[in-house]
Amino acid sequence: MDRKKALELVKIQLTEHRYKHTIGVMETAIQLARQYGADVKKAELAAIFHDYAKFRPKDEMKHIIIAEKMPADLLAYSSELWHAPVGAFLVAKEAGITDPEILDAIRYHTSGRAGMTPLEKIIYIADYIEPGRQFPGVDEVRELAETDLEQALVRSVQNSLVFLIKQNQPVYPQTLMTYNDLVTKRRIHLNE
Amino acid sequence: MDRKKALELVKIQLTEHRYKHTIGVMETAIQLARQYGADVKKAELAAIFHDYAKFRPKDEMKHIIIAEKMPADLLAYSSELWHAPVGAFLVAKEAGITDPEILDAIRYHTSGRAGMTPLEKIIYIADYIEPGRQFPGVDEVRELAETDLEQALVRSVQNSLVFLIKQNQPVYPQTLMTYNDLVTKRRIHLNE
Repeated sequence: MDRKKALELVKIQLTEHRYKHTIGVMETAIQLARQYGADVKKAELAAIFHDYAKFRPKDEMKHIIIAEKMPADLLAYSSELWHAPVGAFLVAKEAGITDPEILDAIRYHTSGRAGMTPLEKIIYIADYIEPGRQFPGVDEVRELAETDLEQALVRSVQNSLVFLIKQNQPVYPQTLMTYNDLVTKRRIHLNE
Repeated sequence: MDRKKALELVKIQLTEHRYKHTIGVMETAIQLARQYGADVKKAELAAIFHDYAKFRPKDEMKHIIIAEKMPADLLAYSSELWHAPVGAFLVAKEAGITDPEILDAIRYHTSGRAGMTPLEKIIYIADYIEPGRQFPGVDEVRELAETDLEQALVRSVQNSLVFLIKQNQPVYPQTLMTYNDLVTKRRIHLNE
């Protein structure tokens, strides 16, 4: 699918603000894909569609999570997490995207997962650092992403965890598993 | 078991420094039990025995975790976590303590768990705030413990999580579940 068609399909799903964010994620993801040798076309499409389900009604997302046998513990945690796996499902169903790497990058763009692929990392980080993002810590992650994709990911996941914990917000266990996987691998790597 | 006998059994298992810590935990736990209406005798014994297995060889602890079918994921995380469940087992076996409430307070004094009992909370917090402890945040938890056991627990678990995350250390998933359980209940409570 070409960029124009993909953007058309996504635009009607989003607010103007979120569409602008999506453009930022797309440009950032393309740049990161070039830099780190990932498939640029897949990064473009995954970025364009990553928030496809963002504004679906909670009831519809809940229904899809149950009907499609997605991890049931999602429902016990913030509905902010739901649009990622539901998005992967709807992008396949409604936009006809079938590439599993693209769908996984959409599916895991909020929680991450243990063993993330380069494309998944790129979409996760692009979503975090696209030019429209402004929050404490984002500039450090932007700088890290210039030289070390993995370390940028570690720092962004750490920031997200610490932010939630300091706000007394529950943390989705898979987000912790993303973090644990990254620091465990990194420790092994650093000790080599 | 009287205090004198219990302290005798524990003293030979510990370094002098750790024995002094144990006395601090005992005194703090007794005080918290009186204050919050828990069983003072059980708090005393759980505190005395909480670090019983602290200096057992890692191999012995590993063997016990496997042989006694304790949660297998313990072995994938810091060995600092092992002495708590292994301690509960050894205190039953070697010191003849059979009270399940005391053993659970020992078992969960490091990770906590979802649905902690008042005795478990008291031992967890006493271990965190006993007079020998000095680290950033401990005074705030000491103050909270004077008026709100639950809030002291939330803060101490938050501090532990944030400390580990900022240090790039893996976090045992059950520690996160302790935190999630506390903040979820608290949010429901605050919204009532």
